[in-house]
Amino acid sequence: MNDKLKKLALLVERNLNKYISAKKEYPPVIYKAVKYSLFAGGKRLRPIMTLLAAKACGFSYLDVMPAACAMEMIHTYSLIHDDLPAMDNDDFRRGKPTLHKKFGEAIAILAGDALLTSAFECLMMCSKNKKIKSENIIKATLELADGAGMRGMIGGQVLDITSEGKKINAQQLAYLHKCKTGALIRASVVMGGILSNANKHKLALLRTFGEKTGLAFQIVDDILDVTGNEKKMGKKLRKDEKVNKATYPSVFGLNAAMIKADKLVLEACGILGKIDGDTNDLKELAKFFTKRNY
Amino acid sequence: MNDKLKKLALLVERNLNKYISAKKEYPPVIYKAVKYSLFAGGKRLRPIMTLLAAKACGFSYLDVMPAACAMEMIHTYSLIHDDLPAMDNDDFRRGKPTLHKKFGEAIAILAGDALLTSAFECLMMCSKNKKIKSENIIKATLELADGAGMRGMIGGQVLDITSEGKKINAQQLAYLHKCKTGALIRASVVMGGILSNANKHKLALLRTFGEKTGLAFQIVDDILDVTGNEKKMGKKLRKDEKVNKATYPSVFGLNAAMIKADKLVLEACGILGKIDGDTNDLKELAKFFTKRNY
Repeated sequence: MNDKLKKLALLVERNLNKYISAKKEYPPVIYKAVKYSLFAGGKRLRPIMTLLAAKACGFSYLDVMPAACAMEMIHTYSLIHDDLPAMDNDDFRRGKPTLHKKFGEAIAILAGDALLTSAFECLMMCSKNKKIKSENIIKATLELADGAGMRGMIGGQVLDITSEGKKINAQQLAYLHKCKTGALIRASVVMGGILSNANKHKLALLRTFGEKTGLAFQIVDDILDVTGNEKKMGKKLRKDEKVNKATYPSVFGLNAAMIKADKLVLEACGILGKIDGDTNDLKELAKFFTKRNY
Repeated sequence: MNDKLKKLALLVERNLNKYISAKKEYPPVIYKAVKYSLFAGGKRLRPIMTLLAAKACGFSYLDVMPAACAMEMIHTYSLIHDDLPAMDNDDFRRGKPTLHKKFGEAIAILAGDALLTSAFECLMMCSKNKKIKSENIIKATLELADGAGMRGMIGGQVLDITSEGKKINAQQLAYLHKCKTGALIRASVVMGGILSNANKHKLALLRTFGEKTGLAFQIVDDILDVTGNEKKMGKKLRKDEKVNKATYPSVFGLNAAMIKADKLVLEACGILGKIDGDTNDLKELAKFFTKRNY
């Protein structure tokens, strides 16, 4: 990540800490559990997308910060629940024991539920900002629920579980990826636009940009599962092969998968060219999606 | 339940079915799992409270139906997650196998997450009704998140788990009950008021009414765990004693617990008397809370 993106990640973290610290009074163990996962060293890519989409629409980072933080809460809850023994059964995440390994399964389930609930609560904090219209907060909530719910991330996770060991074709694979990772990344971008009063045309462009980068992100994730360094990535790799999971590398080969990801990012950047606004940082971020090695 | 309450329960069910059927296109297994739990024969008490609170404020049932359905989705998700092996490890609920017994743990976790997410999505449907102000939908969302989150239901569940086998005093017990069950019941009532434009004074009365009936409901739940009929209730009973859980009957004795619940409902009904509006059905419902035997 370049310095600009690192600074934005820190800005997101400071605000996440502010929102979640308001929960300090509640049962200490759930507060500790939520903080453990929320501050485990994530790259904050999804919230940064929200901030940069707002910038492209002439709003400031702080204007949409509650939405950015809500996005990171959703992402973190999904990691906690995905790591559970009944799901991916992972012991390590970002080089640290997963939440259920550290706090037990019951607290991990509840901490995930708490973050999912807090995300919607946090998003409502946009209403304290007079620049943000109430109607747009409602639209952003619908976008978030769409990206995170049965039509989006949860649906993708279900498809992922139920298609393990089965042969699926390229079209089904693209649909699975679109839901599992793409939908939330798309929502990150679109929410930034909605809250910043973007018109229909601009929102449609942001949506396509989010879809393309989201798919590219998941393809790179699958590639890193094959080629990545476990120590650097802080989690168990080579898992897809073990459970015979259909992925871009397994269906098309590593090289073709990389070409596909690069092409998607190129297309996504082309779309940004049509947006009237400062989209340079959004372009940088999209490029980082395929260049990242962790 | 009297005929009026039964009719309202059916009305809620018809609308729940309408909202959730819009999810039919998604991975069939998650849709089936969500429907399995959502239509397992719940009494729909929480959504009915939302409808009746709206009526007491001069709005119609249909005006606040999305909020009522959202409430039932939250309640259902909490039952699914509570039943999981890592939590209460229950095999039966309402006389049927629990969701994880029927669909496996992974799908049960995801179905709970899906319902929690859908609840917020469903609540936003209030925005289609021109009578409902956007600002009030945001306030209702905050109330829902407060009742369901770390300050409310999730916090109570954490306290419940972490205090098993420990001696807790009457004050701690009241706080636990207030969070675990009371907070969501309170939110059910208050949301109905918020969406129906209730003023601060009326909202405060509805809040106290919700808190008192919520506590009464949990006390009766604990009593039924001791005295109830497993077949009629469709779930395993006598569990609290086994895990040495502090409850109203175990701390104060069965009789004193019953007197406390009756007293709370009487106080709650007294509060309704101060509300300018039709609160008769709300009173009936509160009385049912202590009369119920399942």
